[in-house]
Amino acid sequence: MTTTLSNALLSDILQQIRPLIGQGKVADYIPALAQVPPEQLAMAVYTVDGELYQSGMADKRFSIQSISKVLSLTLALTRYEEHEIWQRVGKEPSGLPFNSLIQLEMEKGIPRNPFINAGAIVITDMLQSRLSAPKQRMLEVIRFLTDTPDICYNSVVAKSEMEHLSRNASIAYLMKSFGNFENDVITVLETYFHYCSIEMSCTELVRCFSYLANQGICVGNKNQIITPRQTRQINALMLTCGMYDGAGEFAFRIGIPGKSGVGGGIIAVVPDAFTVAVWSPELDKSGNSLAGCAALELLANKVGRSIF
Amino acid sequence: MTTTLSNALLSDILQQIRPLIGQGKVADYIPALAQVPPEQLAMAVYTVDGELYQSGMADKRFSIQSISKVLSLTLALTRYEEHEIWQRVGKEPSGLPFNSLIQLEMEKGIPRNPFINAGAIVITDMLQSRLSAPKQRMLEVIRFLTDTPDICYNSVVAKSEMEHLSRNASIAYLMKSFGNFENDVITVLETYFHYCSIEMSCTELVRCFSYLANQGICVGNKNQIITPRQTRQINALMLTCGMYDGAGEFAFRIGIPGKSGVGGGIIAVVPDAFTVAVWSPELDKSGNSLAGCAALELLANKVGRSIF
Amino acid sequence: MTTTLSNALLSDILQQIRPLIGQGKVADYIPALAQVPPEQLAMAVYTVDGELYQSGMADKRFSIQSISKVLSLTLALTRYEEHEIWQRVGKEPSGLPFNSLIQLEMEKGIPRNPFINAGAIVITDMLQSRLSAPKQRMLEVIRFLTDTPDICYNSVVAKSEMEHLSRNASIAYLMKSFGNFENDVITVLETYFHYCSIEMSCTELVRCFSYLANQGICVGNKNQIITPRQTRQINALMLTCGMYDGAGEFAFRIGIPGKSGVGGGIIAVVPDAFTVAVWSPELDKSGNSLAGCAALELLANKVGRSIF
Amino acid sequence: MTTTLSNALLSDILQQIRPLIGQGKVADYIPALAQVPPEQLAMAVYTVDGELYQSGMADKRFSIQSISKVLSLTLALTRYEEHEIWQRVGKEPSGLPFNSLIQLEMEKGIPRNPFINAGAIVITDMLQSRLSAPKQRMLEVIRFLTDTPDICYNSVVAKSEMEHLSRNASIAYLMKSFGNFENDVITVLETYFHYCSIEMSCTELVRCFSYLANQGICVGNKNQIITPRQTRQINALMLTCGMYDGAGEFAFRIGIPGKSGVGGGIIAVVPDAFTVAVWSPELDKSGNSLAGCAALELLANKVGRSIF
Repeated sequence: MTTTLSNALLSDILQQIRPLIGQGKVADYIPALAQVPPEQLAMAVYTVDGELYQSGMADKRFSIQSISKVLSLTLALTRYEEHEIWQRVGKEPSGLPFNSLIQLEMEKGIPRNPFINAGAIVITDMLQSRLSAPKQRMLEVIRFLTDTPDICYNSVVAKSEMEHLSRNASIAYLMKSFGNFENDVITVLETYFHYCSIEMSCTELVRCFSYLANQGICVGNKNQIITPRQTRQINALMLTCGMYDGAGEFAFRIGIPGKSGVGGGIIAVVPDAFTVAVWSPELDKSGNSLAGCAALELLANKVGRSIF
Repeated sequence: MTTTLSNALLSDILQQIRPLIGQGKVADYIPALAQVPPEQLAMAVYTVDGELYQSGMADKRFSIQSISKVLSLTLALTRYEEHEIWQRVGKEPSGLPFNSLIQLEMEKGIPRNPFINAGAIVITDMLQSRLSAPKQRMLEVIRFLTDTPDICYNSVVAKSEMEHLSRNASIAYLMKSFGNFENDVITVLETYFHYCSIEMSCTELVRCFSYLANQGICVGNKNQIITPRQTRQINALMLTCGMYDGAGEFAFRIGIPGKSGVGGGIIAVVPDAFTVAVWSPELDKSGNSLAGCAALELLANKVGRSIF
Repeated sequence: MTTTLSNALLSDILQQIRPLIGQGKVADYIPALAQVPPEQLAMAVYTVDGELYQSGMADKRFSIQSISKVLSLTLALTRYEEHEIWQRVGKEPSGLPFNSLIQLEMEKGIPRNPFINAGAIVITDMLQSRLSAPKQRMLEVIRFLTDTPDICYNSVVAKSEMEHLSRNASIAYLMKSFGNFENDVITVLETYFHYCSIEMSCTELVRCFSYLANQGICVGNKNQIITPRQTRQINALMLTCGMYDGAGEFAFRIGIPGKSGVGGGIIAVVPDAFTVAVWSPELDKSGNSLAGCAALELLANKVGRSIF
Repeated sequence: MTTTLSNALLSDILQQIRPLIGQGKVADYIPALAQVPPEQLAMAVYTVDGELYQSGMADKRFSIQSISKVLSLTLALTRYEEHEIWQRVGKEPSGLPFNSLIQLEMEKGIPRNPFINAGAIVITDMLQSRLSAPKQRMLEVIRFLTDTPDICYNSVVAKSEMEHLSRNASIAYLMKSFGNFENDVITVLETYFHYCSIEMSCTELVRCFSYLANQGICVGNKNQIITPRQTRQINALMLTCGMYDGAGEFAFRIGIPGKSGVGGGIIAVVPDAFTVAVWSPELDKSGNSLAGCAALELLANKVGRSIF
């Protein structure tokens, strides 16, 4: 490493990216997200040795949105044989916006990967089939990974998403028409939107996802969540598919696996080293946190930890 | 006319096309349609002078399916200003299969024309908004046009279609996501599938659609249903868009406006002369009655009545 | 007929549409077309009885552009068996802009119909294979049909099109990659662009295409050019595919077969009655003459001759 | 590392994958490739410390095909400002087969990335503009990187590709129609096909690409070829876009950057450790060497060197 990780390093990075605020656009498709003040910034790093670094509003919770897709996949990996998952969802980048139906129709209802909406909805459908209380179970998993018992859904956000469910309902029904959907569409979407509405802080995110930097073992509680091979596979999927249609650019510029959400959060992983979370609500044209990407680029450069 | 219309002419035509039975495929996406015996044949012609010619099982009722799309449009024209309709649905051939979502997404939820599923569902959504009992009202219109009080829905077919609604629900939700849908998706689909499930005979079809050959005036009861201009417009739409993605071929081979249904029926119009209906359940690869198209081709040739 | 055809009628129509000048846009992809003064107007009608009506600059020649596609198809019908033609080009509307490659790739190099660029280029490739001097032969045909020996190519326009051949070369090479192209791409495009560059007046156009209104027989010289059946087929293709992606709208509004060119000309046919040509250089968003369409709509209404 | 690199390790791997021969399909679009005996196997590894390990026919040359795309990009990076390159070609996975025109048309002639045909053809167009002898210059670069003066084009292969240039000519002309092409299409394709026809052995490939594992410095001659940042960027592009439409699967299964060619070769990079080349002519459905991928998966598992 060129520079050592420290709270000061993170503060320095947030200082440098602050001028970017105002250049992006807060997600506005539901009121609950549109009202988030855009000037908030946060960053946290959690090493495989258990050291935690923080800066900005690192303990302020926000809507994790699509970051939850990584947790859904992780949960599915604990409840299904791998081949059962990968026959219902692919592993390839989509090359199209995250909620497009075109590719889904051309590819007979099999979503490209588990990190676009269609793929995450299929994964949620699988969880709905195998879990007796899929919403409660997800909270239990996250609380266990973070050792934080009060992480919860934002029911206002979930309800608001349900009121704008048309596009995702169209996606789900299209998959159902191809036989790639088992449960009631509205029920599954209700679960899916609850997952999206989970609120966590950067500090909670880096703890929660520490298993992805640590061969599948949660750093906090030492439990093996998934196998080392599955851990590498999720990291690979995040690198190729984790940043909507800006995944290639993110790999090119920053070079570490990451998953973003339209709430402005990003979780990223340097394997065998640390997880890092950033939060800045304004998004770039691909739907990724504009200042958040810049923060991760600075961090990757300073600590010399591209995987490439 | 080269040959004069007569019952014998129609019988002769059915005789000639009978060997085609076995070369097509009965619609099998719902059981109620899949069970229809494929060897049934029927044909009827009704002139603007009120003469009726029949052959085969011309009084046997069958599922009119997409032929109902012409009636929905007609009904909408009596309840809406024209510009209200044409801002929500286009007038161009689709160039793609009848239930594709690709074009609908690229064109922001505005269906290509009222005779593909998406377009007919939007028209049904419009009827749902303006009619207090859209299912009952449609029956009243058809009974009035045909002077036949017992024309009715087949509730088994309608229920069966509802059980396979995924593709059409996906289409409806996609339009809703673009703001081109007013009512509850499931409610509108329920009305839409009832319209598709209407059962009529060839004789009833030619009476029902007589206004399209007669400047908008119902031949039977002399009522002006739509204006002469609207009549020409519906005929034009049938010619360019009435036969799924086989419309060009149908215009090329047969040269008269027509609308087919997957139940194997076709209604066609020779303006200022007659309406003609054929029924043969087996479909060609475009979803049009295989023997039915052949029958219309023979009729058009024999009576010399291509519009071209 | 409501109104009788006359020179005064045509003048009256041109008077009414003149205010539309300025609302469209002259084709500007090559300089030779961009420089055409937009305020020029012309109209001519030629009946199957040999009566000619004219108004405006009816004897002024302009670039017929895509109108030549109808002549290429006619010429091909005289040199090939029909099945040879229709296995290399379809008969369906394209539903996409006239020079799109997307559909052509999805449909394995078989163009949708002979009136989009890809289809006309394939037809030209066929002519190139069977005619020893395809450019000279086309001129001979047109001169024979119009009895006008000085109709000619505009070599400046043809050369200018060759300098902008990239899109059409891409189309031709794509068809070649699917095995649907026989000759050298550049050679065929050179012929194709010459056909597009032909200059004719409205008066010459109505004489030239009189066989389409007259069961295949040239009104001027009484020669049978194509069969009555082929005549109906070309008229059907013009109706469903002749106006780029505005064919449905044209059929809906005007209701007669037509073919337009980006030079601002349109030829249209009322079967068994007359041919009509209009010219106004400014185009609508579909690439059809804006004022020309309006003129044809007025004419169709006044003389009551929609085919529907 | 779990297992140490050695010639025996590579031999062991080739032994294990040999049974896969017969399950893939040799590229057959040109005769010169179709005739390659499918049972040939080779593997080589070259560490950043200069150690070389080999097994099978590691010194047998084969057609590197698309592996040359990485060299074209490298060469372009030495002749152009980065922004000049990335305004003409993107950095995102394509999500579609390597030679599709659909995406290229929708995205206005800007290819998705430099490792699909369209992107590599644009890069070659750029080299054509700046190099006086682009074919000779490429050979000089490769000979310099490998210290092997007799590496050369296979002119039979290049000529054979020229005889089947239609698809790539269509791609190039499409880009030209959007203004993203500077030189004569045929001239650039001639250069492009020569690059594809270069013949190298696995041993030569690992030496040639050693700079990608070594922060941009050629291991053999210690020259800085590109910057460390550019090196990481090329590796990132190979990971997200290097294996046609199987890139996601390759990252998921194997987890290292790689670039394949339809000749059956693959070059892959473990940053700061080694380059590895495999060769087995039979391809999987994505166009990547079937046994080659399996060999790399075994190697990655045995030496524990996924980047994830």
